[in-house]
Amino acid sequence: MEKIFSYSQLLSFTYNIFKAIGCSDIDATTATKALLAADVRGIDSHGVARLSGYVRLWEAKRINAKPEIKIVHETPSTAVVDGDSGLGLVVAPYAMQVAIDKAKNAGTGWVSVRNSNHFGIAGYHAMMALDHDMIGMAMTNASALVAPTFSIEKMLGTNPIAVAIPANEQPAFVADFATTTAANGKLEILQRKNADTPLGWVQDKDGNASVNANELKHGGALLPLGSDREHGSHKGYALGSIVDIFSAVLSGASYGPWAPPFPAYIAMPENQPGKGLGHFFGAMRLDAFRPADEFKQHMDNWIQRFRKAKPATGHDKVLIPGDPEREMEAIRVKEGIPIIESVVADLKKVGEKFNIAL
Amino acid sequence: MEKIFSYSQLLSFTYNIFKAIGCSDIDATTATKALLAADVRGIDSHGVARLSGYVRLWEAKRINAKPEIKIVHETPSTAVVDGDSGLGLVVAPYAMQVAIDKAKNAGTGWVSVRNSNHFGIAGYHAMMALDHDMIGMAMTNASALVAPTFSIEKMLGTNPIAVAIPANEQPAFVADFATTTAANGKLEILQRKNADTPLGWVQDKDGNASVNANELKHGGALLPLGSDREHGSHKGYALGSIVDIFSAVLSGASYGPWAPPFPAYIAMPENQPGKGLGHFFGAMRLDAFRPADEFKQHMDNWIQRFRKAKPATGHDKVLIPGDPEREMEAIRVKEGIPIIESVVADLKKVGEKFNIAL
Repeated sequence: MEKIFSYSQLLSFTYNIFKAIGCSDIDATTATKALLAADVRGIDSHGVARLSGYVRLWEAKRINAKPEIKIVHETPSTAVVDGDSGLGLVVAPYAMQVAIDKAKNAGTGWVSVRNSNHFGIAGYHAMMALDHDMIGMAMTNASALVAPTFSIEKMLGTNPIAVAIPANEQPAFVADFATTTAANGKLEILQRKNADTPLGWVQDKDGNASVNANELKHGGALLPLGSDREHGSHKGYALGSIVDIFSAVLSGASYGPWAPPFPAYIAMPENQPGKGLGHFFGAMRLDAFRPADEFKQHMDNWIQRFRKAKPATGHDKVLIPGDPEREMEAIRVKEGIPIIESVVADLKKVGEKFNIAL
Repeated sequence: MEKIFSYSQLLSFTYNIFKAIGCSDIDATTATKALLAADVRGIDSHGVARLSGYVRLWEAKRINAKPEIKIVHETPSTAVVDGDSGLGLVVAPYAMQVAIDKAKNAGTGWVSVRNSNHFGIAGYHAMMALDHDMIGMAMTNASALVAPTFSIEKMLGTNPIAVAIPANEQPAFVADFATTTAANGKLEILQRKNADTPLGWVQDKDGNASVNANELKHGGALLPLGSDREHGSHKGYALGSIVDIFSAVLSGASYGPWAPPFPAYIAMPENQPGKGLGHFFGAMRLDAFRPADEFKQHMDNWIQRFRKAKPATGHDKVLIPGDPEREMEAIRVKEGIPIIESVVADLKKVGEKFNIAL
């Protein structure tokens, strides 16, 4: 059961909630746009479904609604940003803008962020670079749900990587993916349906293969991209580790099993080695390598050639990263955004706290 | 059946072969060290086993033994290098050094390379950054063996990514992996043994699952990391694509299905959109983010914590990326490098061409 909302309905509701917890007008606008980008692009696990979670983190004093975000260290092509415990949805666009500004002068810009929180979908931040004829990158660490290859201990988050690459007449190439076989949001969907996962998504508390979508509640773990050693899980584990190190060890955030949890009811891991969650952003000016028009024409050629790759039986075409989300956006902007009943109820409850109607 | 060679035996033989095709002393030394790093680290598919392949590319005039490698475009943090059809084993260390030099001034350095050839193992080039207290990155495109998700057409190479990260007392973190479920070298090992692959490594010419290690010779393809859509092959496909675009579209090399083949008997794909193979290198100064000592102490802590992650039944420890190769190096430096009979025969044949004894 779902209810359809227009983008503008969700926009004003979400904006009012962020205002109600104390965000400035501009921060509430920034956070709302970043959060709703997930709903519009069809990544329902990362949009308004998480709004009440952010509010609970604010109630638990783990999110600062009035952060003084600042650059604490920099070189011509790098910076470290301290998010002052702000909403990741506000800290991330600030830091990505620093990366873009650095790239204007130095050719590229690379920003590692500490003392932040969950930033929504990585793709939204990476895509900020596109209008500047730059390649954008965004990644973040997250609380530990993933067991490294050969382990049963949850050590890494789903640690996503996003890369956005401009084209000319073709739509941009936008990859945005968790470094696990399946994102946690996909497990949540199966949990609601009481359905099993495919083999290779999770393991049980002893490291055995499992199809139980609720396995993480019983000591199990998500598996790195590749699922098992024979199918390259050590590569997914390495990718998740690189995201963790770039986001948190470079910046001075908390890494690995110490990354702060999103649910406010889970205690912070003890002996934090850094401050808050970490992110990492990159921007590379196309014309720092070759004329931007030339690059974009070749990207068009790349995209067109890959679209024409011979499809396998039962499939009508090969997709370019970003196609499904862009197609979803075109539909949802026109027809509205379906929100499942339990999330609608959750949003109403949040609204009641502040006397804001959905 | 194997024969054991000392490192210095292979060094002088390989150096003499590179000299014989016309490399300068310094280029022959550079290429030999890069090539043998694979044998020493246990990546046997990428070391001297490929020496005759490089010679055949030189004979086919696809490799220029006296290249004028040069920077053709640059900004404070970027450069494009033209390899002048040189050995990738020579072009790559040149370009990585440019990245390191850029990082000294700008904080980071990013170099995209065109007009190159196969560069050996990516990890060797990434590791050049370690001595400078920098994080190193290396990637390359390669001739098409991999079908994108939903496709039966070979569009991407195994396009590896390497990331080397310094630590203090702990050995460096060195990830180096193909963006496929299994590297092509692993298929070659199974072919020699007449053994099957696990399901999920290759598909047949119609896109069906296959366990035939020779499937690529019959129109089949390697699968992106993740193996199938349900297990995230679209993520492996995206990663391989990003490597292709950073290495070849940014630099002006040939991308996707146009990437030049390594075997000299395979004709170059027609209508090349660029020049030669492409690579991409990165160097990030640690102290462009935080004091290098501080970073390296936290890396020690990261590594030690991950080593202590609770192992699954049947496994005694969790590995850090780079552990297996470093352990292999320690053994092979002492005990010598085993070379299989067919490769020994192949090396002898190459030696005979130039009157160089193995």
